[in-house]
Amino acid sequence: MNEFDFIATYLAPLAGAGGLNLKDDAALLKPSAGKDLVLTKDTMVEGVHFPPGHFGGDTADKLLRVNLSDLAAKGAHPIGYMLSIVWPKGIDGTYFKGFAAGLRDVQDAYNFELLGGDTTSSEGPMVVTATFIGEVPKGEMVLRSGAKVADDIWVTGTIGDAYLGLQSALGRALEPQPSAEALWHFEEAYYRPEPRLLFRKTLRKHASGAADISDGLVADAAHIAKASGVCFILEADKIPFSSAAGAWLSKQRDEDEAFKTLVTAGDDYELIFTASAGFRQEINRAAKTIGLRVSRVGTVGQGEGVRISSDGKVMTFQNTGYTHF
Amino acid sequence: MNEFDFIATYLAPLAGAGGLNLKDDAALLKPSAGKDLVLTKDTMVEGVHFPPGHFGGDTADKLLRVNLSDLAAKGAHPIGYMLSIVWPKGIDGTYFKGFAAGLRDVQDAYNFELLGGDTTSSEGPMVVTATFIGEVPKGEMVLRSGAKVADDIWVTGTIGDAYLGLQSALGRALEPQPSAEALWHFEEAYYRPEPRLLFRKTLRKHASGAADISDGLVADAAHIAKASGVCFILEADKIPFSSAAGAWLSKQRDEDEAFKTLVTAGDDYELIFTASAGFRQEINRAAKTIGLRVSRVGTVGQGEGVRISSDGKVMTFQNTGYTHF
Repeated sequence: MNEFDFIATYLAPLAGAGGLNLKDDAALLKPSAGKDLVLTKDTMVEGVHFPPGHFGGDTADKLLRVNLSDLAAKGAHPIGYMLSIVWPKGIDGTYFKGFAAGLRDVQDAYNFELLGGDTTSSEGPMVVTATFIGEVPKGEMVLRSGAKVADDIWVTGTIGDAYLGLQSALGRALEPQPSAEALWHFEEAYYRPEPRLLFRKTLRKHASGAADISDGLVADAAHIAKASGVCFILEADKIPFSSAAGAWLSKQRDEDEAFKTLVTAGDDYELIFTASAGFRQEINRAAKTIGLRVSRVGTVGQGEGVRISSDGKVMTFQNTGYTHF
Repeated sequence: MNEFDFIATYLAPLAGAGGLNLKDDAALLKPSAGKDLVLTKDTMVEGVHFPPGHFGGDTADKLLRVNLSDLAAKGAHPIGYMLSIVWPKGIDGTYFKGFAAGLRDVQDAYNFELLGGDTTSSEGPMVVTATFIGEVPKGEMVLRSGAKVADDIWVTGTIGDAYLGLQSALGRALEPQPSAEALWHFEEAYYRPEPRLLFRKTLRKHASGAADISDGLVADAAHIAKASGVCFILEADKIPFSSAAGAWLSKQRDEDEAFKTLVTAGDDYELIFTASAGFRQEINRAAKTIGLRVSRVGTVGQGEGVRISSDGKVMTFQNTGYTHF
């Protein structure tokens, strides 16, 4: 099966009207009146962003989810995406079907379409890139740069599960050994993070600044702080952990170090956002409606950077999050 | 220098208003009223699409040009792009500056902006991907699928120079040795193909179908033929070669085979398009105005596929163009 057959057999059925059945070398997008477009792009490299050899549905699924998470943080809803795949040379063609099925699952779940892209191969690791196009009502995109002094700082879901899932996915034993249920929970968090798209209207209405947590809670807090010209003051004991992650954490010899690992590891794909204290009730109510856990984890202050206070002391970090080089 | 410094130092100055100074994790695009958007995406892999070790301006420059060529074929003008770079691990930071300078050169030449993207690194070859957003007046995108029986088939510029330039770039001797001027011409064609953006209005007005020639003249002719449900009948002696390529061709022992190589090698980034015979004068005049060579190379017929006639015989092809796997 060559690249054209791959596209015709597996990708064309995923394309919508704008994708022109992938028979053209470009996609056509007719913007809706009264809307701005939000564009995001995320690349995943085998061995860096996903485990070696995971050429199938897992990787397709996650690629779309991490991009959708970016859109969710901006208050946008997804329209479609452009996909680029660099297959490892000599790839077993049975992976094609699984990869396409992974794309289909996420498209069906969140209702958007494949618009076009590019397929090639190389001697190196697999590399996949998606560029997503989302929509917001004109002027309503939620920016990183809008956080204001005295705003509350909020986090959706829980932090650190994906890191523990990654250890498990890489075959590294966690000490002590978590229950089978906890392991499943961690791996789900790693492989299938839930993009918080249902929360987008609440963000548009109430959030002053937002980002998704991909580089790590501390690093992404720092990104908003920097873009907004403020300081993020977080309280350690308010950072939300799942009961499974909490159980693991409480059994670590050096709990402080383990805590730091979880809040800097990244891959959570939860949202961190700021909002005026006047919106607490609305935010809690909206989150409850969609069954989403939200936690107030701190307050925006004057200054710069991120401070995490724990028992009245301020924690310091050697590494604030993942950097690629 | 880590990825955030790289972005702040070298990429942020390339970003326009929509790129939000690259301080956000998404880009904001405010579509113009009365316009459709055209999206294209091209990936280049070190060792496949560009010579090993070319981590600097050459590769940045070409990445943008090949995408602009796609937009040109659709009659679109460029607005901006999302960029993804996978650097080889441990890359010498001096390449960053050159890469950014290459982007700058092309942005300045064609007037569009960086919107956002993603930067990472891997143990494998360098991989770069750009997703371009272009604009056309509503309903005027030129499709692959519009070619009609009896239309003329046109090609811009000349064919095969980029293939000869690639041989030279890879250090493969051409026989007989071309002049220094011819070699320079071939390498320019390979490294810096000229996207035919100035021809976009003419295409929108007169072309029934179009594509850019990236996979090879025969393969891209076949793509339009297939999408349009017609046969492309090309005349070998009308296919335009530069005088340098023509000189090389005429000295080959097996001129037929060498001809086939040039028309299937790809990387030309010229345009192939179809138009009603009634528009010959307008097309020639418009091309002359912008100093662009255009050649009528055949006629659209009933049936399917591509036929090239030479001295009254039909040439057959083992390979119609480059496929990646």
